[in-house]
Amino acid sequence: MSGTLYGIGVGPGDPELMTLKAHRLISTARVVAYPAPDSGESFARSIAADAIPADAVEIPMVVPMRVERFPAQDVYAGAAETIAGHLNAGDDVTVLCEGDPFFYGSFMYLFARLSERFPCEVVPGVSSLAACSAALARPLTARNDVLTVIPGPLDDDALRVRIEQAQAVAIMKVGRHLPRLRTLLDTMNLTAQAGYVERASLGEQRVMPLADAPDAAPYFSMILIYKGDDPWLTP
Amino acid sequence: MSGTLYGIGVGPGDPELMTLKAHRLISTARVVAYPAPDSGESFARSIAADAIPADAVEIPMVVPMRVERFPAQDVYAGAAETIAGHLNAGDDVTVLCEGDPFFYGSFMYLFARLSERFPCEVVPGVSSLAACSAALARPLTARNDVLTVIPGPLDDDALRVRIEQAQAVAIMKVGRHLPRLRTLLDTMNLTAQAGYVERASLGEQRVMPLADAPDAAPYFSMILIYKGDDPWLTP
Repeated sequence: MSGTLYGIGVGPGDPELMTLKAHRLISTARVVAYPAPDSGESFARSIAADAIPADAVEIPMVVPMRVERFPAQDVYAGAAETIAGHLNAGDDVTVLCEGDPFFYGSFMYLFARLSERFPCEVVPGVSSLAACSAALARPLTARNDVLTVIPGPLDDDALRVRIEQAQAVAIMKVGRHLPRLRTLLDTMNLTAQAGYVERASLGEQRVMPLADAPDAAPYFSMILIYKGDDPWLTP
Repeated sequence: MSGTLYGIGVGPGDPELMTLKAHRLISTARVVAYPAPDSGESFARSIAADAIPADAVEIPMVVPMRVERFPAQDVYAGAAETIAGHLNAGDDVTVLCEGDPFFYGSFMYLFARLSERFPCEVVPGVSSLAACSAALARPLTARNDVLTVIPGPLDDDALRVRIEQAQAVAIMKVGRHLPRLRTLLDTMNLTAQAGYVERASLGEQRVMPLADAPDAAPYFSMILIYKGDDPWLTP
């Protein structure tokens, strides 16, 4: 009997935003894998750290930080073979995923390689989207609004047409694109309706109107825009 | 000192998909409010039931089921005043919200009435979106995809233009709109890329290709479409 591959969303950063199921599975894990930078701590591991058993086998998947948009697939190909070894030996493998595994998550690179060969279960997690709207203390989307989630690296024309057709907009992966995004939203007269959040749910969380946001935003930052009639403000 | 209003996401249905924080706050709550139908059980309460203290004061907010699209605001106005009484008396009030409170949630109707008068904290939860993609066992959205979330009651023209401009699409609140939505997606040649999920994460969850979905879908059902290059299938 082979083991099961678990892709576990550990939520946006606050360890208390892990689900009961994530906590149970991590607490009883024998093999734990997670993405890690080439220097410094793994964010996913840091969220789950207190739950990981001291004697668990740990598999850091070292993803070098680089300018290219997406990680080299060789990292995931290698990790998938290491993980397959444990699964074949009958051990379950628990993969820690920031936020939700299937919401812009790198877990898909393992899932693509392993889900046809082994039993696989995805445990959904709280996304950064939910954490950011909670941090801003305003609804993300309401009633019959359209919500569009757009990666910040897209070009202005691609952003503009999609922003125009939604009532609620989340721009992810803001990082170094912030000055350009702010200029775009200014030209669309949307700055007043835009909020900025970085490191949502963590101790160092910062929340402010987009107009006040720093030019140097971290990768884990988001802009939320609400263009509707603010129904919650006029009950 | 007035009490704090907590809007707590209890997740998509499986009680184990509550967060540790939701579980802690509900387990120690003295006053618990939740939306409830005029007959039958409250879904939000049923998710959290095992955590609610036996001696907690419970405030069901009875929202009559009707054909109109949105609940009468008088229900929330009345509930807000009841809740304000407890907050003024110094007690915290814990409001149970299906999924995430700020993702199409009725919590906003209380938040709009109370957040300027009382301290308020929103605890994000796992959304039905994350639960449905986990149930379908395929990524919701990847890399630099655009994800658009569209309520099923929108008309075909509104749906079509937004579906065209996204790589990943979630159609919420499918219910009785399913036959029309299926026809629309057929004309757009998207049926083969569309999955259908109802009651995600619950024991009675059903998952299937859209082509096999029943004409009579429950309100808590969703269609997920992926139009991109399926990067996870060709690693």
